[in-house]
Amino acid sequence: MYQDIKVVALDADDTLWVNEPLFHEAQYRFGEIVSEWIAVEDVMDEHYRTEVQNIPVFGYGIKGFTLSLIETALRVSDRKVSAEQIVQIIQIGRDLIHHPVELIDGVQETLDSLSESYRLILATKGDLLDQERKLERSGLSSYFHHVEVMSDKSESSYRKLLKHLDIAAEQFLMIGNSVRSDIDPVLRVGGYAIHVPFEVEWMHERVEDFDESHSNFRRVQKLSEVCEFLDC
Amino acid sequence: MYQDIKVVALDADDTLWVNEPLFHEAQYRFGEIVSEWIAVEDVMDEHYRTEVQNIPVFGYGIKGFTLSLIETALRVSDRKVSAEQIVQIIQIGRDLIHHPVELIDGVQETLDSLSESYRLILATKGDLLDQERKLERSGLSSYFHHVEVMSDKSESSYRKLLKHLDIAAEQFLMIGNSVRSDIDPVLRVGGYAIHVPFEVEWMHERVEDFDESHSNFRRVQKLSEVCEFLDC
Repeated sequence: MYQDIKVVALDADDTLWVNEPLFHEAQYRFGEIVSEWIAVEDVMDEHYRTEVQNIPVFGYGIKGFTLSLIETALRVSDRKVSAEQIVQIIQIGRDLIHHPVELIDGVQETLDSLSESYRLILATKGDLLDQERKLERSGLSSYFHHVEVMSDKSESSYRKLLKHLDIAAEQFLMIGNSVRSDIDPVLRVGGYAIHVPFEVEWMHERVEDFDESHSNFRRVQKLSEVCEFLDC
Repeated sequence: MYQDIKVVALDADDTLWVNEPLFHEAQYRFGEIVSEWIAVEDVMDEHYRTEVQNIPVFGYGIKGFTLSLIETALRVSDRKVSAEQIVQIIQIGRDLIHHPVELIDGVQETLDSLSESYRLILATKGDLLDQERKLERSGLSSYFHHVEVMSDKSESSYRKLLKHLDIAAEQFLMIGNSVRSDIDPVLRVGGYAIHVPFEVEWMHERVEDFDESHSNFRRVQKLSEVCEFLDC
């Protein structure tokens, strides 16, 4: 079934390298800064509330995340947060930007094999600069024909991507950790998708009613297992 | 000299639509918020100082601009800025995001003609989501084959773009208002470039020593004048 695939697109965060745990850690640090106003167990929910409202405005990525942290602090403190605390919150964002990239096991070897048979692209949400920087630091740049940073991973975004790549849906395979972003919309436009779950999932990426029996769908436990189906 | 051109790339901000004046207005509003600490005539310089340091970290776009405003306020107030004032500063960023798009005169007609003879792409810096949103609001989407948001407009970024477009440099023409971003690096990689100056220029885009006699270079006063050289 995979013999027509020309382009294999890979998600980046939590597919190639560790991401969500860093944001959890960042939220934990944030929780300590605003602990006089909010209990540590409520911090994630409060920040998530701000973030979900802000995603349509700010999009994905560290800068939007940081602005949302600041807005959460303003809200939970009833506008009592101090300038000193705002400085500390911005520092959380800066530290995320500068954080080293930790590759997930087996990723490099798998890309190395896949890139011999397919045109690989990186298809990711987030800030363009963040993602380019992470790719640079990851040492994986040379495997990718190009980086496609998408403002969202909706059906219409994938349709645009296919048009841009000048290929049919059945020549396209997406691999990623998010059913909502990497799998479901790709199957809906007629492409192939392989799900590689990651240990931690961002609340925003959860889907309830996904039909796993779709004929173009597979799930593997590690990226290297895609070689059971693909040429590598 | 233009007979080989296949792809015409256009800059967006201050080439297709008004941008820099909105940021000036935003800085003016910011100046009023922090007026107890800094004279209005120094606001732009102070913010520019923060921004230039932050561009390598945050990149271009409204979110980075807003974070830089907050950091400027923290610095000039010696960390005395209030939560209330931070709320007002974030609102400046939000208002920029939601601002209507004002097309520059003659842009639509020119794109309409150019798109019959060339593959047009939008090549811009800034936040991906901001730029997609502006393009959507501009009503110009249908003229462009795709949108290329670049984290910077350096020679190496244009080389990547050419590789991605799968064309030679002499098949590529860039049109834009910034000599530093749209013209100079394109000429250096062997492409063609047409400069359309805009009434206001961002300090960051200034170049001192540009050689205007380059044979692949032209300057026009309005976008519609490109039709004197091109097929439209």
